[in-house]
Parts: sequence; structure tokens; C-alpha cells
Amino acid sequence: MEREALEKHIAEKQSVLCVGLDPHWERLPKALRQTQDPIFQFCRAIIDATHEHAVAYKPNLAFFEAQGAKGVQSLERVADYLHQNYPQHFTIADAKRGDIGNTAQQYAQAFFDRMGFDALTIAPYMGGDSVIPFLERPGKWGVVLALTSNPGAEDFQLLPLSMSEGAPGEALYQRVLARAQEWGHAGNLMFVVGATRPDFLRKVRATAPDHFLLVPGVGAQGGSVAQVLHHGWGSEGPELLINASRSILFASSGGDFASAAKAAAASLHREMQQALSPK
Amino acid sequence: MEREALEKHIAEKQSVLCVGLDPHWERLPKALRQTQDPIFQFCRAIIDATHEHAVAYKPNLAFFEAQGAKGVQSLERVADYLHQNYPQHFTIADAKRGDIGNTAQQYAQAFFDRMGFDALTIAPYMGGDSVIPFLERPGKWGVVLALTSNPGAEDFQLLPLSMSEGAPGEALYQRVLARAQEWGHAGNLMFVVGATRPDFLRKVRATAPDHFLLVPGVGAQGGSVAQVLHHGWGSEGPELLINASRSILFASSGGDFASAAKAAAASLHREMQQALSPK
Repeated sequence: MEREALEKHIAEKQSVLCVGLDPHWERLPKALRQTQDPIFQFCRAIIDATHEHAVAYKPNLAFFEAQGAKGVQSLERVADYLHQNYPQHFTIADAKRGDIGNTAQQYAQAFFDRMGFDALTIAPYMGGDSVIPFLERPGKWGVVLALTSNPGAEDFQLLPLSMSEGAPGEALYQRVLARAQEWGHAGNLMFVVGATRPDFLRKVRATAPDHFLLVPGVGAQGGSVAQVLHHGWGSEGPELLINASRSILFASSGGDFASAAKAAAASLHREMQQALSPK
Repeated sequence: MEREALEKHIAEKQSVLCVGLDPHWERLPKALRQTQDPIFQFCRAIIDATHEHAVAYKPNLAFFEAQGAKGVQSLERVADYLHQNYPQHFTIADAKRGDIGNTAQQYAQAFFDRMGFDALTIAPYMGGDSVIPFLERPGKWGVVLALTSNPGAEDFQLLPLSMSEGAPGEALYQRVLARAQEWGHAGNLMFVVGATRPDFLRKVRATAPDHFLLVPGVGAQGGSVAQVLHHGWGSEGPELLINASRSILFASSGGDFASAAKAAAASLHREMQQALSPK
């Protein structure tokens, strides 16, 4: 999907909501577990219930792969279902892949060509040749991890680099932001920046003013929508995708899980509309 | 697999050879492409031809996932075949995963519990909580990327950290080596260090003297076995797994691919025997 199409969808809906599809097997509603493909049934119900409020969906690969080949089959069905029924929604394979060039090409083939995702999350530790293969297909995006929302982000991402390297006090995640922009541009490259560190969104915007940011950590992990929109606003508009997973998917553990998910998504959507409308 | 069993296998065979299983679809021998599961057939033939020379196998997930759910089914068959027929061989899922705790748990479930791999490669960018879930199962190993063999290793892994952090001149990969040792020990944690930088193996050994190192980049990527064994020797012996993939798998593109693979593996084995025997 081209950037213009995504921006148009955001503007029309006044939403930057990305629904993370983490179909945790042990938490699937009991009624669904009897069906032939519980993971697909669950994701489909969540998608149908939330599509009016969301502009993007982000299946988290681990929860599919945990069920082996059958889980990957469910993922393929989810991707097909999304692309056939909601072609205006942006789709992100949350795979956090990162490997040398010829291997990265294989992943690009799997997620872009075979499954038709618009974007793939990428771990940058292996550097340029592990990222670039994901930036070479028209309308496809790499979403590079910059500053994540988990406690372990402190271990390496926030480490200050030597003064002789780059700007004084530059941290590793800032170098990732800067280097990645030599490999891609605002039309094929996004960054992951956690909502649990809203003050850092400003620092990120100093280095990456016009790239879309994928922001996890709202809801179950504790960040607020208003804060993220306030600090993370881009140079050309709300260039953000705010992800919520568990707070929507598991809003209810009962048979009403889909309507509860819809209500949770609608509530986030309202927060977004309020923050987006006056600008 | 426990460390003692791996060391015993290495000592008996005088080999540290890990065969990387990268079943690149376009390079599979034509005769196999007509079979029902070409990827499995190819891997099985390679395993049968090389098992006398190897102590470990490392399927590269990307080449399986590129074929979708069917490819993951092939991977499951390869894992089963290895564990049933060659239980003394160490098995590494080269997945380079790295995600927050609850997601990492899902990957651990997939690769350790479901598929029975001994080890999984891990990208460390997201820090401790993305690594630790892989170090909590008895006999299972995390293999953390430290210094990889690709050109992109220069982009971040070799960046010097600020003097105020740790030892003067410490690079990011050295910090990864040091921090990871707070999360695991020499019985559940290995590191990836590329053979294309043999001089760096000494530096790695200064920080991680007794951990096993998984060393890719011999063969097609250009490092030498003797150099790796010389510079990478551990405090208690040859605590190394030297990986070769393409130079073995695609030693011949014809119907004799298996015997050519055997010859390539035997040649590396001889180099290893020469370097290992006098010690």
C-alpha cells in the first residue's frame, strides 16, 4: 500500500488504530476451541468487529507459529481474509525478522509475495543488508525496531555511543533511526517506538520527523493515546499507527468477546478522534 | 541436549561441523522437485550424507517459511527425522527471533516444545526479557547474535560505546556478550560470531572464554577452519560449532548432490581433525 492511501484512510476515519492480532491459544474463548481452525475464527471475528475503528492489522507471528504448520496455515487464511474483505486496511506481519541478504530475500518472498502483507517488522541488529531487501518492493514497507516498549529496551537500545561517533550523547536507537534513513525513505520505512516512553517520541521526531511510527504499548502496557499523539505527531500529520492487542482481543474472555473487542476499539477510536479533530 | 553430551560427540568425532540446512527452492536439484515434499527430501538426503562428519544441524527457518505452511510442515518433518535418526546431533533452529517476554514464550514453545530443537538463534536488540525465556528449559539453549559475518555487522555491532559505559573502547557486540552472561551461563547460552572476522574471535574469547560459539561464514563466505579453531579455541576445549551451508548443500547441482555434499563435509571434517588432534 502506498503512503497516500494509508494517510487518506487515517484522515477519513480519524483513527490511527492498529489492532494487534495475538491469538494466544490458552486465552481463546472456549466456544471457538471446538471449531476446526480456532485461530482463524478468532481473528476473523476480531477483524469483523473492529474494522470500522481500525486502519491497520498486525498479526504477531509467534502466536501462529506456536501452533506449527497449522498455525501458519491459519495466518495465511487471516492474511487472505484481510486482503479480500478489507483491502483498505494496512497489514503488518509482526515477525521481527533480521538476517543476511539472501535469507532476508526469502522472508520478503514469504511475507510480501506469498502472503501479501504491506509491511514487516525488522530487527536491525545485523545492519543494512538485513533491512534493505524489505525496502525494494513498490508499496511494501519495512518497520524497523528503534525503541521498544519492553524493559529490555534499556539493555542496548538506550546505550550512549562514543562521542567520536555521531552527535554527542547519541544513543543506539538514534543511530538506528539515522542509518535506516540512508536505506529507505518515508514511503517505505517505518519505525517501532514504544508508547511506554512518550517523552522519547519527541526525541525520535527530531531524527525522523516524517516517517510513520508504529507505537505499541498502549492499553495493557500502559501508554496513553493522547500522549502518543501529542508527542509523536509527524511533520505532515498524524504519521502514527498506535497498536493495541490484548486490551482489545481479550476485553472479554466469554462468548461476547467480539462485542467487547468492538467496544474497546471504539473507545480507543473516540480518544483518537478527540485528539485528531482539532488539528 | 546437555553440554557434556555435545562435548563428548565433538571429542569422539574430532569434528565441530554444523551443517546449515538452507533449502533454497530455486537451487534444489531438478529430480527432487517432482517429489511430494522436495524440501524434506533434500534435507533428508543431505543429513544422511553428512551425519558422519557433522555434530550439529541448523535449519534456516527463512528457507522453509518462504514456502508457507507447507514449508513449515517440511521443517517439522526435518526436525522429527533428525531427532529420531540422529539423536546425538545437536539441532539449532536458525530463527533469529527476538520479541517481548510473552511473545518469546510462544517462540520457545514452537521451537523447543513442539519441534524439539536443542537451540534457537536470538537477535538481542530488544534486551534481556527477549532472551531469557529461551534460557529457562533444561537442556535447551539460546544462541545470541553477537558479531555476525555480513557486511551490515559494521552498522551497529561494531559501534564503540560511550566511555562512561563499561570498558574503554567497548563495542556494542562486546556489551551484548557481557550482558547476556548475566542472563545465562555456558550450559545454556551460545553466541554467534562470524568467521569472516577471525581476529575478532580473540576479542570475543576475552569476554566469553567458555561459551560455545556458533561460527558461520566458513566456505561460501570465505573464513578458514584452521583460523577459526586457532583464534576461537575456548578455555576448556574446542567450544565451537563451525557452520557451513551453501558450500555443502550445493556442492553439486546435479543428481549427485548428496555425494558431493558428503565430500564437501568430509573435507571440512579432515581440516577439523588436523586442527583438533594435536591439542
